[in-house]
Amino acid sequence: MLIGIGDDAAVVEPEKNRVEVLSVDALVEGVHFDRTFTPPQAIGHRALAANLSDLAAMGAAPRLCLLSLALPPALPVGDFDALIEGIAALARRHRVHVAGGNLTRSPGPLMIDVMVSGTAKRRQLLTRNGARPGDELYVTGRVGAAAAGLAMLKADPSAARSETNTCTAQYLYPEPRVRMGLLVARNRAATAGMDLSDGLADAVHQIARASGVGAVVEAEAVPVEPSAREWFSGHGDDPVTAAITGGDDYELLLAVRPRLARRLTAAERHGGVVLTRIGVCTEAPSVLLKCGRGNEQVVPLPGGFHHFR
Amino acid sequence: MLIGIGDDAAVVEPEKNRVEVLSVDALVEGVHFDRTFTPPQAIGHRALAANLSDLAAMGAAPRLCLLSLALPPALPVGDFDALIEGIAALARRHRVHVAGGNLTRSPGPLMIDVMVSGTAKRRQLLTRNGARPGDELYVTGRVGAAAAGLAMLKADPSAARSETNTCTAQYLYPEPRVRMGLLVARNRAATAGMDLSDGLADAVHQIARASGVGAVVEAEAVPVEPSAREWFSGHGDDPVTAAITGGDDYELLLAVRPRLARRLTAAERHGGVVLTRIGVCTEAPSVLLKCGRGNEQVVPLPGGFHHFR
Repeated sequence: MLIGIGDDAAVVEPEKNRVEVLSVDALVEGVHFDRTFTPPQAIGHRALAANLSDLAAMGAAPRLCLLSLALPPALPVGDFDALIEGIAALARRHRVHVAGGNLTRSPGPLMIDVMVSGTAKRRQLLTRNGARPGDELYVTGRVGAAAAGLAMLKADPSAARSETNTCTAQYLYPEPRVRMGLLVARNRAATAGMDLSDGLADAVHQIARASGVGAVVEAEAVPVEPSAREWFSGHGDDPVTAAITGGDDYELLLAVRPRLARRLTAAERHGGVVLTRIGVCTEAPSVLLKCGRGNEQVVPLPGGFHHFR
Repeated sequence: MLIGIGDDAAVVEPEKNRVEVLSVDALVEGVHFDRTFTPPQAIGHRALAANLSDLAAMGAAPRLCLLSLALPPALPVGDFDALIEGIAALARRHRVHVAGGNLTRSPGPLMIDVMVSGTAKRRQLLTRNGARPGDELYVTGRVGAAAAGLAMLKADPSAARSETNTCTAQYLYPEPRVRMGLLVARNRAATAGMDLSDGLADAVHQIARASGVGAVVEAEAVPVEPSAREWFSGHGDDPVTAAITGGDDYELLLAVRPRLARRLTAAERHGGVVLTRIGVCTEAPSVLLKCGRGNEQVVPLPGGFHHFR
């Protein structure tokens, strides 16, 4: 970092023999979060987490971020401080430098735009289009927690205060899989990767489309967060469908050549998160879900979750 | 550009022997523009221009940008296309690659965040803190046009359709001084630089503070746009005060060692814009305006323009 906040722009020295990976993501009040049940610290955390997750999905090491905040005049100063601290705490944990930013007022909703810049070795970049028929599909962590957490918070805003609720914690303070993304990119275990910000089902569709393959996901193999499963079942939803179409899980979907699968073991040991095999890429172009007892039913994999709808 | 729109993030190869210069700026409807008299193409143009101006003020060559748009559901598709075209046309002109972006809906105002990345040689960076007592202050182009143009548009929204009105054209389609910024940075003519997005007076204050100097600006020397002067006078305002405290002029303020002033001539010839000497940096820390007939009055230089107020 040569020049930080205070001049017309931030200045950094590029890293040698690395390409630069850039991503931008926005959180808009009323679209991506509801201030009645999302503490300001969580809003800040999620804004940066979404971007770190994009870098993780490319196998890039995050380096710095720029913020752009549009703040409603009624935002209490304490909330502003907490929001910044939410960003800063996650940034510190991942050694991301907050290099600059822009602050303006908003006559409407609170909006946060975060731009992150990271680096990767060119040959180790994890794109969406490298999957081949026969590659196995793995997902990090558990899915469905964020969608269930959001539903729980909508039903009972005070749930945000419970630190023991896995689902609300996952929704409010998702952990971007930066380390795992780096490890599988560096050891070339993965042929394609993407994050699940719009849901697991959407990610499978996207990797299949970008790579020109089909895919079969096994419903029974999908690692649905147990308390989310319970919540969905209790509300009359099929837990797997709800989990794979719900948004805001910042896990990674990875395609892996079967002969390289052992490299995942090493990544799993150092990556701090479990990997679960959920399916396989196919030559046939359809993207399917095997479900029912003993996987006897095969249906098209549902679409993903889109904030824009 | 190795990977553009379509993957989780954009990927670029850094330029050798260059540092990277990053800036982010937001335009928020109701704060920075009014859709009733700002054509969508101008909104897009201004969003990118503000950022290119920040790079120009650092002496950096722009390279790529990332966009983040929050769109109200009622925005007509044609307006969206025109907005994007406003960004794209200016980007093409400056060979800036639109490397990626993010699109979301807004339950309130239209918001555009633009992040630009550029490059510069480390030793040629133009910062705010290099001015020394005795350095002369120069400004590019003419000032006050944007503020007058905004006032004209507020008074008569149909003025936006006139292409012969210098003031409204300057407000709607400001020309960032990218080339001039590069030239004075490369030939090391300038010791400090800043853009005038918050007004000339604010820029003088900022450079003086960052450099630890004072400054004296001569009111008579300030190149106020003639039609803006006329407008301000006709509305009972002192033209110089209105021009130097008005925002949205994307000109550059430069501090220049007197013995290097001849280098400005070369920059002026190739930079496509006139440079005017408006004052000098002083040892005494006050920031003053000489005004009145024959400069006999000396008053504190007024403050700048802040959207946040």
